[in-house]
Amino acid sequence: MIEQTHIDKFISIVGDENVKSDKAHLIAYCYDATKTRFEPDAVVFPKNEEEISKILKYCNEHRIIIVPRGAGSGFTGGSLPASGGIILSLERHMNQLLEIDMQNMVARVQPGLVNMTFQKAVEEVGLFYPPDPASEEYSTLGGNVSENAGGMRAAKYGITKDYVMALRAVLPNGDIIQAGKKTIKDVAGYNIAGILTASEGTLAVITEITLKLIPKPKFKKTYMGIFPDVTSAMNAVFKSLASGANPVAMEFLDKLVIQALREKLNVDLPSDAGAVLVGDVDGSLEDEVKFQLETLEKSFSENGGKSFVIAQDDDHAKELWFARRNASPAVTIFGTKKLNEDISVPRSMLPVALEEIYKIGDKYGMQVPCFGHAGDGNIHVNVMVKDKNDPKQMEDGHKAIEEIFQLVVDMGGTLSGEHGIGTSKAPYMDIAFNDAEMNLFKNIKKAFDPNNILNPFKMGLD
Amino acid sequence: MIEQTHIDKFISIVGDENVKSDKAHLIAYCYDATKTRFEPDAVVFPKNEEEISKILKYCNEHRIIIVPRGAGSGFTGGSLPASGGIILSLERHMNQLLEIDMQNMVARVQPGLVNMTFQKAVEEVGLFYPPDPASEEYSTLGGNVSENAGGMRAAKYGITKDYVMALRAVLPNGDIIQAGKKTIKDVAGYNIAGILTASEGTLAVITEITLKLIPKPKFKKTYMGIFPDVTSAMNAVFKSLASGANPVAMEFLDKLVIQALREKLNVDLPSDAGAVLVGDVDGSLEDEVKFQLETLEKSFSENGGKSFVIAQDDDHAKELWFARRNASPAVTIFGTKKLNEDISVPRSMLPVALEEIYKIGDKYGMQVPCFGHAGDGNIHVNVMVKDKNDPKQMEDGHKAIEEIFQLVVDMGGTLSGEHGIGTSKAPYMDIAFNDAEMNLFKNIKKAFDPNNILNPFKMGLD
Repeated sequence: MIEQTHIDKFISIVGDENVKSDKAHLIAYCYDATKTRFEPDAVVFPKNEEEISKILKYCNEHRIIIVPRGAGSGFTGGSLPASGGIILSLERHMNQLLEIDMQNMVARVQPGLVNMTFQKAVEEVGLFYPPDPASEEYSTLGGNVSENAGGMRAAKYGITKDYVMALRAVLPNGDIIQAGKKTIKDVAGYNIAGILTASEGTLAVITEITLKLIPKPKFKKTYMGIFPDVTSAMNAVFKSLASGANPVAMEFLDKLVIQALREKLNVDLPSDAGAVLVGDVDGSLEDEVKFQLETLEKSFSENGGKSFVIAQDDDHAKELWFARRNASPAVTIFGTKKLNEDISVPRSMLPVALEEIYKIGDKYGMQVPCFGHAGDGNIHVNVMVKDKNDPKQMEDGHKAIEEIFQLVVDMGGTLSGEHGIGTSKAPYMDIAFNDAEMNLFKNIKKAFDPNNILNPFKMGLD
Repeated sequence: MIEQTHIDKFISIVGDENVKSDKAHLIAYCYDATKTRFEPDAVVFPKNEEEISKILKYCNEHRIIIVPRGAGSGFTGGSLPASGGIILSLERHMNQLLEIDMQNMVARVQPGLVNMTFQKAVEEVGLFYPPDPASEEYSTLGGNVSENAGGMRAAKYGITKDYVMALRAVLPNGDIIQAGKKTIKDVAGYNIAGILTASEGTLAVITEITLKLIPKPKFKKTYMGIFPDVTSAMNAVFKSLASGANPVAMEFLDKLVIQALREKLNVDLPSDAGAVLVGDVDGSLEDEVKFQLETLEKSFSENGGKSFVIAQDDDHAKELWFARRNASPAVTIFGTKKLNEDISVPRSMLPVALEEIYKIGDKYGMQVPCFGHAGDGNIHVNVMVKDKNDPKQMEDGHKAIEEIFQLVVDMGGTLSGEHGIGTSKAPYMDIAFNDAEMNLFKNIKKAFDPNNILNPFKMGLD
């Protein structure tokens, strides 16, 4: 419970209507996309940077924990108050598109702006913001930056960090900083925008984001290839990229996912398909798109591809994408509990990583359907626990996850390609990082937040 | 002077032949591309990461200053021992290309590898490393990462930081860390590779670099456009980019540079030319290159372009580039001392920035020829002092530089697009950063290097 004097102070800063500590609000702000729940002591809705500065300065002086939050759609607990404190919600008042600067091809936004709202706005003026996390319809750009969100288009266009040109932010002591500029080149001072990106709200509260935009590609086509097994599909991926293809997306589904899609959703995929690759190609010229598709078709057929389809129109494209978009709900036919992790390995390691992951599943008698981003080595691994009410099975499921993390790290991969660490992957940090690296993280956290008031108990730092 | 016991310790770590403290070596390692000279107390040539770790641990315990150094080709004193200490030279033994990984399209290199040696090696296998600083024939990749080097191709391909996937590094206490992976996506832990890039050797000694590569574009053409003045040239730049052109380089020369090239080097440019744009376009298809050139030609002529030339062959391309490559030596006709700075502004601000820069020159009676990267807003400004032996003129030149920095920062630009801060721009840091930002830089420096032994007295941090 938080003292009334603190609540009164927050009210004096943001106004009575922007401080909530009733039960309904505490419940509404206790969740994200994980199953974990942590209730805050209060929720505060600041209207601008100055209010955020005042709030942080006060919280720093009184050692009150503060947790910044966008839409709360994260997968690892990044926006949850793991040890209580104040939720600083940026979605209500700080959600504006401030500027689209056509000559410099950049935009300035507030952190609470929803990704898709932003995408649509820039596309209306002929520009393009590529990062498209699966949560794009509700996740905020502040959250995207804080978690360094990826998406389907990463193979060609990179991820959120590749578009962050500058940030404004408030430090835990209330100081307001500008990090980076609207310039393509800037080598003055340490790269603060670079370290704030992916810092999961533990170092500063982001108040404004300057994002790079690119011209909207004029032409786009969707393709799908069917393969006898995962290895042939992956070889087709390598061959395509080496041949100069640069697809926007190259998503794969494994045999189990295909089975689930057929059984649960009647998706029209061949019963003997061992893997699917689906994605888009784009370009500013029709010939470019044609070249992409020809290169893919050739590389696919040379690596055992059994069929190659190009969408004839938008409806057909949607149909091809339906399989990929419904992979996650479909695999629930294999169990009552899905333990899903978004590991990432060097692209070349995908075939052997998948083989070893299936072996770990076999060892525990669990099916592990996998799908995801073949173009960039990031896979969504789903360890399916048949009966979630059986503690032994649940324990085995978690053991399998831990073994998968160890495997991935041994292969030069990482615990998370997109979702971050937050609370849910924090126990696994010592698999990926040695003591020197963890100490460095802790020292950096202290450099920004000596009193540990900002989003503590995240990323294994406490 | 350094104590003999310390020298003996270094000899015990790296061997007698790899520790030098004779006068010849101290002089050989006292310079970079600035005119400033700082002699080290000794020069040490480590052979591997373990030796670097031992050296740093010992220096940290004994508070001995250590300054990492590649080729020493920097423009701002970044690799100079500004307050004595040991030069840790990485060019002699740690200059190997460790791996070109074709399937993942990445390479691992040691920091002392020369940029151009690396470019050639990857191009031999059909890959491409775009960052091409003007020093590419001698500067090292470790130096490029530490300064976040740019180059001509930044407009299309970005700068060094866009290619750094992972770093290995030794912290001042001797700890060895790995930051980042060979994966396209990685959101586990703080982005350490991101903050080490551009940190000017003040946070850690980089021992291995993993760089992203891209397929080598198959087709390339060189173009040149002549304009009546800088404003029309800049409008042509904006119009070209907005029309979907994506040139590799878009370099500009102003009227004074054109005059200098004509007078000093007899370059064949029209006497009434007020600005030149020169650059390359490339692509994986001939049609792509054709589209680029057509778009440029149209945008140029619609904005007052007086001629547009496409190079017919390699020799012709070299001829067109000759003007740009010799801009820097040519402008010496305007004075005996050139004060050159590489400011960077949002691209859209270039016309007004140039206008104001010329006014500052007029105020002090100095000519200020400008050239550089119109595509990305980074310009090389040359304040020409007529008589360098006149203290008043030199003082005025430095006043002009300071006014130019203030102007640029007021326009949302930065002190340096490519060269870094080092010692030479350190006095201007307070123009660009407020106290909160400078304090944050200092806290970050302390988080990595609490005893301030690594390359101190740089970036205005001391």
